[in-house]
Amino acid sequence: MTRGKLYLVPAPLDFGCDVETPLQEVLPDGTLRIAAGLSHWICENAKSARAYLKRVDAIVPLAVAIQGHSICELPREVHKKGDHHGQFDARSMFDVFPAGCDVGLLSEAGMPAVADPGTSVVRAAHQLGFTVVPLVGPVSVLLALAASGLNGQNFAFVGYLPQDPEARTRRIQELEAVAIKSHQTQVFIETPYRNAAMLKALSHALQPSTRVMVARGLTLPTAQVRCETAKHWRSSVPDPAAERMPTVFAIGR
Amino acid sequence: MTRGKLYLVPAPLDFGCDVETPLQEVLPDGTLRIAAGLSHWICENAKSARAYLKRVDAIVPLAVAIQGHSICELPREVHKKGDHHGQFDARSMFDVFPAGCDVGLLSEAGMPAVADPGTSVVRAAHQLGFTVVPLVGPVSVLLALAASGLNGQNFAFVGYLPQDPEARTRRIQELEAVAIKSHQTQVFIETPYRNAAMLKALSHALQPSTRVMVARGLTLPTAQVRCETAKHWRSSVPDPAAERMPTVFAIGR
Repeated sequence: MTRGKLYLVPAPLDFGCDVETPLQEVLPDGTLRIAAGLSHWICENAKSARAYLKRVDAIVPLAVAIQGHSICELPREVHKKGDHHGQFDARSMFDVFPAGCDVGLLSEAGMPAVADPGTSVVRAAHQLGFTVVPLVGPVSVLLALAASGLNGQNFAFVGYLPQDPEARTRRIQELEAVAIKSHQTQVFIETPYRNAAMLKALSHALQPSTRVMVARGLTLPTAQVRCETAKHWRSSVPDPAAERMPTVFAIGR
Repeated sequence: MTRGKLYLVPAPLDFGCDVETPLQEVLPDGTLRIAAGLSHWICENAKSARAYLKRVDAIVPLAVAIQGHSICELPREVHKKGDHHGQFDARSMFDVFPAGCDVGLLSEAGMPAVADPGTSVVRAAHQLGFTVVPLVGPVSVLLALAASGLNGQNFAFVGYLPQDPEARTRRIQELEAVAIKSHQTQVFIETPYRNAAMLKALSHALQPSTRVMVARGLTLPTAQVRCETAKHWRSSVPDPAAERMPTVFAIGR
């Protein structure tokens, strides 16, 4: 059977934020044009996918009206447990689509399969013989790293840190040890309402001279990237507005 | 003194390739518009920077004609030794620009300061009080990771591997051990003419079931992403065309 393409379609980073980013600010024409031409989707959330398609349609008219799209959600267990251990076989998800058609993979924000579910779908696409095509768009982890001034020639993204304070402190110190020994920048994320707790934990668990980058609301009008020593952050006053903003953290020397 | 912004301006991934990617395919209008408005630059190579600006000008007319731009190259030692150990103090590079003006940082391909020089400039900008703004564009390492089907919720980019065959084998096996133990995808790059040697080394040094992704010519018409086991690659026939294509490698389980 001839297989089509699986396009990895990036979304803007304003999901759940007060302000919408105009799509042309963060998505190339090439990405918008391909997204507008697709009508078979695998996504994190069908409602968000439809909202995204409406925004695309306002710039590049969709080839097929939204009602005519087939939109399949990744199963809930993939969201909950994460999609990175490869236990979920996503091949059957492609059964609902006509043979040979192109499929889009879409997250709620940013690039599918990077710091987000979708890996199992990409893996299945490779197994089924799809051509996998990643499209250009915003990736918060990478924008943050570039803007940090920390080492971008050797870095790791490690996802979320533990929630338990003691386990989190241990993990922070483990990451700091790697950052010092291998000169490898360590990047991670947190859910917005825990940002202040994370920054406090970092500023106390790290050695005073270790640098900590906090990147908030990237691509939004209120975007802010700061990189200071742990010592500096220890005496900084928390910004309540930051509690609702998607944030990327990084540590390095 | 009031400081301006340092924009991290991404470039297409076609540098040194036979085919040019139309800029609108890989750069959002937002990025093109800001790039067209700048006239003070720090870059890897002034000639490539001018070629890039000509391409931007053909889509969004530059605010200032190219002859009127001030374009400063990063010193050669930064290229050679890498820009990641922070020894180079780039603050004086900003002295040539008028106070308060915005500055663009530009690589020959992709995102400055990610798998590319520029970190020292970003660090200096933070120290000088610039607002650092990363713009959206293509980042080969991230596009490759997303398209690999390997774990994108925990990954490391480790730059280049050693050239010496024995040291390279040791490093490959070290990275494989991390990939297995931490379930952390390991991403790295090679200069195009060593791609075939790298793939051969990977296919022999790795355990047969370890998966190896090879992403070639991303964003180009000839782009290709394949992810197979080391065992599979061992018996694959090298593609001579691949020898001239920018390539990203990744290994994982």
